[in-house]
Amino acid sequence: MDIYLQPVAFVKNTRTDLSDDFWGSVVSEIELVETIPAEAFKGIDEFSHLEIIFHFDQSDKTSMVYSGHPRGNKNWPHTGIFAQRKKDRPNALGLTIVELVKREGNKIWVKYLDAINGTPILDIKPVMKEFLPAGKIRQPKWSIELMKDYWS
Amino acid sequence: MDIYLQPVAFVKNTRTDLSDDFWGSVVSEIELVETIPAEAFKGIDEFSHLEIIFHFDQSDKTSMVYSGHPRGNKNWPHTGIFAQRKKDRPNALGLTIVELVKREGNKIWVKYLDAINGTPILDIKPVMKEFLPAGKIRQPKWSIELMKDYWS
Repeated sequence: MDIYLQPVAFVKNTRTDLSDDFWGSVVSEIELVETIPAEAFKGIDEFSHLEIIFHFDQSDKTSMVYSGHPRGNKNWPHTGIFAQRKKDRPNALGLTIVELVKREGNKIWVKYLDAINGTPILDIKPVMKEFLPAGKIRQPKWSIELMKDYWS
Repeated sequence: MDIYLQPVAFVKNTRTDLSDDFWGSVVSEIELVETIPAEAFKGIDEFSHLEIIFHFDQSDKTSMVYSGHPRGNKNWPHTGIFAQRKKDRPNALGLTIVELVKREGNKIWVKYLDAINGTPILDIKPVMKEFLPAGKIRQPKWSIELMKDYWS
């Protein structure tokens, strides 16, 4: 069962390297592909936050493993791929909640998107508080350590 | 630029109709496909919440429009597809934050997944509080009205 997708937009920003951390100051421009009209963004600026689903098109399929130590750090437990957010994963899908800065026609600008320049975007959805977790978030200690400098 | 994806798992639950509301009581079983080993779920139960990216495989491509009134309700503003979460959308990707109930081998059970029985799942990611919106969520009044009975 193959599912065929096409980019709806592409990322433009100053980030070209695949390193893990320090995404806090990156602002990204997202421009719709030519076949999608600007009306697809109508009313989007009524929302403060968006979910961006993108394709890790630079990820290396041959280095995908179903479990391993996060970032190869043996101080952190051997963990399954679906308990990690790393880019070398089945289907190479990325997903981040971003802050919408502004919209102009078929372009939006967002903060806190951890995708490099040229990344294909597959979907954009508005964040509604009704879709955020209701209860308290529980997560392992290694994941808090891993995220320490991510948004610096 | 075509991107080819394959299901990593499928949804099993009691929900077979495509209606919009009343997802609150649905518990879904998610079983990995045979080609993905159970180790891919190792450590997942250290997380309380997961993000599930799925494919709206029953959505009708011919009824996809780039803008319109949410749920066809003319009391709500004419809005672009990327300012809505409806299923008839480019690439037909669904995305929901769910609560993890338990894991057994290559299966997990989750609450608050708004996908019907048989839905192909494309990715599963752990929710880390560092990826949740930092600031206050702003969203239009129509979206709050639309969500009124969604999780009932």
